[in-house]
Amino acid sequence: MDDVAAKERRILVAVDEGEESTYALSWCLKNVISDNSKDTLILLYAKPPRPVFTALDGTGFLFSSDITSAMDRYGNELAECIIEKAKRMCKDLQDVKVETRIESGDPRDVICQMAEKLGADVLVMGSHGYGLIKRTFLGSVSNHCAQNVKCPVLIVKKPKTNAGNK
Amino acid sequence: MDDVAAKERRILVAVDEGEESTYALSWCLKNVISDNSKDTLILLYAKPPRPVFTALDGTGFLFSSDITSAMDRYGNELAECIIEKAKRMCKDLQDVKVETRIESGDPRDVICQMAEKLGADVLVMGSHGYGLIKRTFLGSVSNHCAQNVKCPVLIVKKPKTNAGNK
Repeated sequence: MDDVAAKERRILVAVDEGEESTYALSWCLKNVISDNSKDTLILLYAKPPRPVFTALDGTGFLFSSDITSAMDRYGNELAECIIEKAKRMCKDLQDVKVETRIESGDPRDVICQMAEKLGADVLVMGSHGYGLIKRTFLGSVSNHCAQNVKCPVLIVKKPKTNAGNK
Repeated sequence: MDDVAAKERRILVAVDEGEESTYALSWCLKNVISDNSKDTLILLYAKPPRPVFTALDGTGFLFSSDITSAMDRYGNELAECIIEKAKRMCKDLQDVKVETRIESGDPRDVICQMAEKLGADVLVMGSHGYGLIKRTFLGSVSNHCAQNVKCPVLIVKKPKTNAGNK
């Protein structure tokens, strides 16, 4: 084994609005991050495109620009809120640098691209990566990332039972 | 965050004859295992059934019992050899307990069952889990496990380039 005790690792955690992603981050903080290390923790939120609008196009129902801009604003606020929540979970870290990124696009592409671009040493994500509705449209994000990301991928599933959940 | 500094974790690493699995174990030793912890590292080798024999059945070509028993013996020796090699990679660990398991069966089933049975806190494996030929017969083991194992799954891909390999 090489001596890599002081190795700086870049740990990328894909967060979203779901409980599974919260659990994945929490598991990562307990099990992957060493607080006395030079790790950098990067919290990434991929702001997905508007799958629901597209799905409704077929009905001929159109949103006015007022509504779409309000929806965009809501999307931005939601993104900030999710990243802030994730950041608060990391507040006890002392030596570890915490960075945040919000990127727009299909979460599958965004996560794969950012893992590469940010030079992640490991990608951590919930087992689905995105909420139930979006998953139906997009397929399993974690499957896609596990197959396409070059760095190690840690997929964390939220236990279904309450026992051993914490 | 809970205080889990002294938590005992059971880390299950699925090993096989491939380089990818060696890399996954090595990555795990550097990045997941803390040597001053109470972690238990379990090295699991799943001895696969004989897919090649079955595939040849259609040709009417039959192996004599001498040959099949020699093949079985070879399979057992190979299993021992793989587990020993993995164990040697862990020789520098001092406080971490290292256990080994050899189980027969389809690697996909064996790994999922053992993760549950051994109460693994995390499963670590190469991105395919089994060599090229077996993968063709069995499909991607890591995909299957990531979807079916309840504990977090860390999938480690061996970098294709030599740069940054070590």
